[in-house]
Amino acid sequence: MRFDILTLFPDFFTSPLSSGLLGKALAKQIATVYLTNPRDFTTDKHHKVDDEPYGGGVGMLMKPEPIFAAIESLPVMPRREVILMTPQGETMNQKMFQSFAAECDQMVLVCGHYEGVDERVLNLVTREVSLGDFVLTCGEIPALTLLNGVIRLLPGTVGKEESLKLESFEAGLLDYPQYTRPAEFRGWKVPDVLLSGNHQAIAEWRKQQQIERTRTRRPDLWEQWQQSQQ
Amino acid sequence: MRFDILTLFPDFFTSPLSSGLLGKALAKQIATVYLTNPRDFTTDKHHKVDDEPYGGGVGMLMKPEPIFAAIESLPVMPRREVILMTPQGETMNQKMFQSFAAECDQMVLVCGHYEGVDERVLNLVTREVSLGDFVLTCGEIPALTLLNGVIRLLPGTVGKEESLKLESFEAGLLDYPQYTRPAEFRGWKVPDVLLSGNHQAIAEWRKQQQIERTRTRRPDLWEQWQQSQQ
Repeated sequence: MRFDILTLFPDFFTSPLSSGLLGKALAKQIATVYLTNPRDFTTDKHHKVDDEPYGGGVGMLMKPEPIFAAIESLPVMPRREVILMTPQGETMNQKMFQSFAAECDQMVLVCGHYEGVDERVLNLVTREVSLGDFVLTCGEIPALTLLNGVIRLLPGTVGKEESLKLESFEAGLLDYPQYTRPAEFRGWKVPDVLLSGNHQAIAEWRKQQQIERTRTRRPDLWEQWQQSQQ
Repeated sequence: MRFDILTLFPDFFTSPLSSGLLGKALAKQIATVYLTNPRDFTTDKHHKVDDEPYGGGVGMLMKPEPIFAAIESLPVMPRREVILMTPQGETMNQKMFQSFAAECDQMVLVCGHYEGVDERVLNLVTREVSLGDFVLTCGEIPALTLLNGVIRLLPGTVGKEESLKLESFEAGLLDYPQYTRPAEFRGWKVPDVLLSGNHQAIAEWRKQQQIERTRTRRPDLWEQWQQSQQ
């Protein structure tokens, strides 16, 4: 899969894209990431990418021309999404990541900055996506999140396919508690059932923990899960 | 404010912490960020930070001892939160960021890796926080998000205080569409009202757009907002 990130701060991505499992996946060319700076597509002497909002208000907006020119400079692959990272968009979730991983061969991620982008940029965009109900200084973090979550699902990134299937949100429930050695640490013991070797009892305990956790911590997910079981 | 990030991949943070508005805020010492690697607190020859889960299952878990030792090596400031980044936690939102910005002088952010962390780590933790309903390869991205969203709210990070107040989620509604020059771009015109100079009409149009957008795009926020108006 090809990712094109439109960003005024391409340097932001240097270390996250070369670190950890994501760095390894990119080194293996499971996906490729290209960084494009709208500032390189300005035509004025001062390379101006932002301007004041019409109708007044504080802060600066990203101008439409450099974003259009930057996107139009990119190659176009058949199954492409152009995504604006914005708090006004659809909230990211695992299902969205799965559909992108399965259905796209190119994702163009437009990172907003300052107070936002000129509304006419939406004419180029296929989806508006939000990281969550909060405000950040930049769209680079949401873009990095989407990139990580989607690349993680591509074959070859995570060692064993099974380890994807068992996780939180794939099954609609939160994960169960997990323990590793030592069996006792500062007086806190690993639950006996996990040491029992009884696979059926372990599976039942884990499922019960998932249900209990989801019910108490996330009534919203719990309700969805119950409906999905009917 | 002091941030301590516990991470197996401290290099991840190099470029994000020196880029954009967050980089500027840290250069101005509005906050300080310290990176601590649990691997430096292992006592075995191989510096082992992970191990297999009790009860079976794929993937590796982060062991409790290096995390305890790393956290216990840190200074303790009076108003401190120790936060585990985990999909099982409470979902981040603007209200959470505001309370951290107002009430903490130290935030310890524990980044999970591999399949998760040994459950006993919760004995050291004051909050479990999730970025959203999806799975990433690492807890570094959620930690960076929290750091960015909280530092953004500290005095001096964003130029004009007013630009914080008017934004999405502070008022419980999505933002209105914004436009900047040119007044016409590729046949798409800026709405007349924004060019009218009539401040009251502009304010009304914007509020109406916020309401309409929130109602159609985010029925969940819309319901909350309506209740808050009663």
